[in-house]
Amino acid sequence: MRRTKLTILALICAISLFPGIAAAQSADPLPSWNDTAAKKTIKAFVERVAKQGSPDFVPVAERIAVFDNDGTLWSEQPMYFQAFFVFDRIKALAPQHPEWKDKEPFASVLNGDINSALAGGEHALLEMAMATHAGTTTEEFEKIVKDWIATAKHPKTGRLYTEMVYQPMLELLAYLRANGFKTFIVSGGGIEFMRPWMEKVYGIPPEQVVGSSIKTKFEMRDGKPVLVRLPELDFVDDGAGKPVGIQMHIGRRPIAAFGNSDGDLQMLQWTATGPGARFCLYVHHTDAEREWAYDRKSGIGRLDKGLDDAKAKGWTVVDMRNDWKIIYPFQKK
Amino acid sequence: MRRTKLTILALICAISLFPGIAAAQSADPLPSWNDTAAKKTIKAFVERVAKQGSPDFVPVAERIAVFDNDGTLWSEQPMYFQAFFVFDRIKALAPQHPEWKDKEPFASVLNGDINSALAGGEHALLEMAMATHAGTTTEEFEKIVKDWIATAKHPKTGRLYTEMVYQPMLELLAYLRANGFKTFIVSGGGIEFMRPWMEKVYGIPPEQVVGSSIKTKFEMRDGKPVLVRLPELDFVDDGAGKPVGIQMHIGRRPIAAFGNSDGDLQMLQWTATGPGARFCLYVHHTDAEREWAYDRKSGIGRLDKGLDDAKAKGWTVVDMRNDWKIIYPFQKK
Repeated sequence: MRRTKLTILALICAISLFPGIAAAQSADPLPSWNDTAAKKTIKAFVERVAKQGSPDFVPVAERIAVFDNDGTLWSEQPMYFQAFFVFDRIKALAPQHPEWKDKEPFASVLNGDINSALAGGEHALLEMAMATHAGTTTEEFEKIVKDWIATAKHPKTGRLYTEMVYQPMLELLAYLRANGFKTFIVSGGGIEFMRPWMEKVYGIPPEQVVGSSIKTKFEMRDGKPVLVRLPELDFVDDGAGKPVGIQMHIGRRPIAAFGNSDGDLQMLQWTATGPGARFCLYVHHTDAEREWAYDRKSGIGRLDKGLDDAKAKGWTVVDMRNDWKIIYPFQKK
Repeated sequence: MRRTKLTILALICAISLFPGIAAAQSADPLPSWNDTAAKKTIKAFVERVAKQGSPDFVPVAERIAVFDNDGTLWSEQPMYFQAFFVFDRIKALAPQHPEWKDKEPFASVLNGDINSALAGGEHALLEMAMATHAGTTTEEFEKIVKDWIATAKHPKTGRLYTEMVYQPMLELLAYLRANGFKTFIVSGGGIEFMRPWMEKVYGIPPEQVVGSSIKTKFEMRDGKPVLVRLPELDFVDDGAGKPVGIQMHIGRRPIAAFGNSDGDLQMLQWTATGPGARFCLYVHHTDAEREWAYDRKSGIGRLDKGLDDAKAKGWTVVDMRNDWKIIYPFQKK
């Protein structure tokens, strides 16, 4: 009897001590990836840096991986999802702004004419972003984003925006973390637009989200401190801004970087040129049927110079149509 | 024989599975703290938030603790240690700047007359900081800091600056982390002056360091990307800037905050007024013999309004002379 108990205890202990062994050897950590070159190079890189005794071994603290968001972790067509948020906010705030009825670009948004609203280019977008992202406290804004993301639907798929994340990339995030990586978002999107939902959707906590920002100001209101969001641009985390954002928030160079557009190119260059093993990957949107197909000539998420650089430097380019079994989690069987 | 093997295996397993139990129950996690009220309130708070089933239980992801550095984790007298770095840099850079011989505040520094150098107040300090902290790449600056911190000695103690950290606070950092806290630095010091040594000295990685900063710019040099440090102020992480820095870098409100001066007051207020259990602590410099004694009238690390607020709000105030058995690690027996 005693022996039996000890045997059982020993077995339980063996399982408890080495829970990952059986799973790691049998289960595929990237089940939504076809067995093409992309998947193989990812796995080969992770094994190189994470395996004790490997000549390219990297200590856990230095296993930093950075991910763009729009077009890399979730879709970005027919326009950045945050733009839909801006338009919905303009509609919601319109009663407090009767002057918007006669003022562009707001008037066009209220008339449902998005093309005209965007005709003013960057300047018009920035004006709308400021009008809709500032003026609240940080806590009020967080609640606004949470409410919107929980209910707003994509105009084409009718899905929640958080359902339009890429299942293969979710698996990649989890696979990297299981191998000691710390995963960060480095996106041109608004930092406070992303933080409220990314922990739940990507497993990435607020302190590992880097993005564009407006300034905030500490203030006492009725004896309670608040942070007020100001209509003043603070930082644009895009293009050459991405390595700057990485240095500002992370303070060390990543060893792996994942993007999908020319706006990610400097982030990939910065990552690629550090010492030791490095991994850079571009998601190439090639799947007009299951998602969208676009690259060199797209207004949103243009991938032109980056595609040339990737070829020249041997970076991994994911062909969504051929490399991914499914695109979105809801397509899982 | 088999039974014996199993017994041993079971014992090894039991120890492996529950390694902390014996240690946690017997060893004191804060051995350099006297058994005064300060120590008791710290331990009571940690147990309240970390114990499963406690009405004040806080999930691990939300156990954020923020620490000021100068005067909270290491000494700051007779002036901020980073100022010594600035003066040493001016001396090192003087050969490349012959004009400094006749230009204040640089001339006074080169003549060893620090008081005159500082007579120009904030403006003079900022000018010296820009002249010595900008103009390099981020990697060059990191090396400069590492070399300096490894060799420069404090004028009074003759010790390395990293030896002048507070042993009780090192224990507190480790104790919090052992209880699931993520520990962050939120300091008025330069972020890139702190990152190169804090991981080794405090166990805090670069991505958990928030500080003041100058702007950087991405640039290609001989086909290699670099980040160039510009002589342009980006962010001052002091006073009302601290909650702003916390939001920018961490994106959620800490549940525990540790400071020593009025420059930390808004950080403590911001921390104190969130929902649920909260902990705020001021280190009060009361030990003229083993360290320095200063508070309401000090030019460096003034603690005046904060001392009143701490009393009014019931925050913990550490009396260094009475609450700490030793100050520095080299005083350990």
